Amino acid sequence: MSDPTGRGVFLSFEGIDGSGKSTQARLLAEALRATGREVVLTREPGGSPGAEEIRALVLQGDPDRWSAETEILLFTAARRDHLERTIRPALARGAVVICDRFADSTRMYQGLSRGNLRGVVDQLHALMIGVEPDLTVLIDMDPEVGLARAKGRQGVEERFEDFGADLQRRMRAGFLSLAGEFPERFRVIDGARSPEAVAGDVLAVVGGALASV
Amino acid sequence: MSDPTGRGVFLSFEGIDGSGKSTQARLLAEALRATGREVVLTREPGGSPGAEEIRALVLQGDPDRWSAETEILLFTAARRDHLERTIRPALARGAVVICDRFADSTRMYQGLSRGNLRGVVDQLHALMIGVEPDLTVLIDMDPEVGLARAKGRQGVEERFEDFGADLQRRMRAGFLSLAGEFPERFRVIDGARSPEAVAGDVLAVVGGALASV
Ligand SMILES: Nc1ncnc2c1ncn2[C@@H]1O[C@H](COP(=O)(O)OP(=O)(O)OP(=O)(O)O)[C@@H](O)[C@H]1O
Ligand SMILES: Nc1ncnc2c1ncn2[C@@H]1O[C@H](COP(=O)(O)OP(=O)(O)OP(=O)(O)O)[C@@H](O)[C@H]1O
Ligand SMILES: [Mg+2]
Ligand SMILES: [Mg+2]
Repeated sequence: MSDPTGRGVFLSFEGIDGSGKSTQARLLAEALRATGREVVLTREPGGSPGAEEIRALVLQGDPDRWSAETEILLFTAARRDHLERTIRPALARGAVVICDRFADSTRMYQGLSRGNLRGVVDQLHALMIGVEPDLTVLIDMDPEVGLARAKGRQGVEERFEDFGADLQRRMRAGFLSLAGEFPERFRVIDGARSPEAVAGDVLAVVGGALASV
Repeated sequence: MSDPTGRGVFLSFEGIDGSGKSTQARLLAEALRATGREVVLTREPGGSPGAEEIRALVLQGDPDRWSAETEILLFTAARRDHLERTIRPALARGAVVICDRFADSTRMYQGLSRGNLRGVVDQLHALMIGVEPDLTVLIDMDPEVGLARAKGRQGVEERFEDFGADLQRRMRAGFLSLAGEFPERFRVIDGARSPEAVAGDVLAVVGGALASV
């Protein structure tokens, strides 16, 4: 990453809801820890005590509680705290930081689903964050696969339908488009396979990045 | 103000701690209401339900809880909410908005007392707020006068000394320097007089602004 003090490696997972980000982040953390590396597994929004409090403030209450612009400011405040208190110190120690969602989720959701605010997101990022992961794993799959996976679990299908299969499709396209914008750090992995098969691909792309950093 | 939909008038009070901002904001609100105008008396940080929650998050806990940068992002989020939910709707109705502190306080405190972040404050303001009061009343006085006023009240002198008379002097100079930067909207009033004498001057400068808007 662009921080010259960082000697660690900064990895993020992105993808639509239920694509397997948290599962793969956990499997990767286990695999890397088994090799003796220090791994910090973290998530956004949140990832530090202050950022978790901001997360609670943003996510609680009714959806119209904050405008898209105020929400972006709150997410940026949370990210700044997460970066200062969790990510940078870990990288300075030489740890591998695995982050379950990072700035790409804000680019995608706030840029796409809540008005055309991608320009605002980018300017705030440049001003207050300025850091990208060394490698971003995009777990890509047809939203219908997630729906099929969820069918066994009660209530989830309904939630998915509420949220909108069409919106999920646009989000998938949004993430793929981001991968095209940042080809040097994005790796797209097919998530419509067993967790072990996906984890194998993740380890292959991450292993390459760890070797080259 | 720069919002073309606003037909009201946007006024703010600035000045060092204890200079009489809240007292004068209240007296001005009473005087304008007596003339039949709708007045919205509000304050920062806070001034809308969401912004008051952000205020509580920023001000509670120990002073090192947030970095200066995260704090500026949180204040800007609060200001954006305050603007959208309280200030703009009131101006659109034609009300007079009287705000006890606004962006100049952030310029002064975050720009001066917590590292040299004035540039960051200005860029965030341009990107996310973009609005200035029609008129800003700076209540100016020697910090020693505030100290003398507080002498009767227990514990306050100590707090003042803790906070640092020297810092108060630098803040006074910081506000005067802002007044010099924005001469078209700042009016500097001598606050080291009786509340009634100060209120008379406030009404004189505000009356001129109300007539010309
Ligand atoms: N490869 C897979 N095959 C089948 N089921 C999977 C696979 N990966 C994850 N799952 C299951 O799918 C569900 C969603 O997985 P997970 O929570 O990892 O996704 P996520 O991307 O983190 O979701 P969210 O966006 O909601 O946080 C979980 O029940 C998980 O056990
Ligand atoms: N002109 C004045 N002469 C004497 N005392 C005053 C005058 N104006 C205000 N006071 C008193 O001084 C104290 C501080 O006034 P006030 O709360 O209005 O200041 P403030 O600028 O809003 O302070 P803060 O920055 O702490 O919010 C109060 O006790 C108030 O009653
Ligand atoms: Mg998850
Ligand atoms: Mg006050």
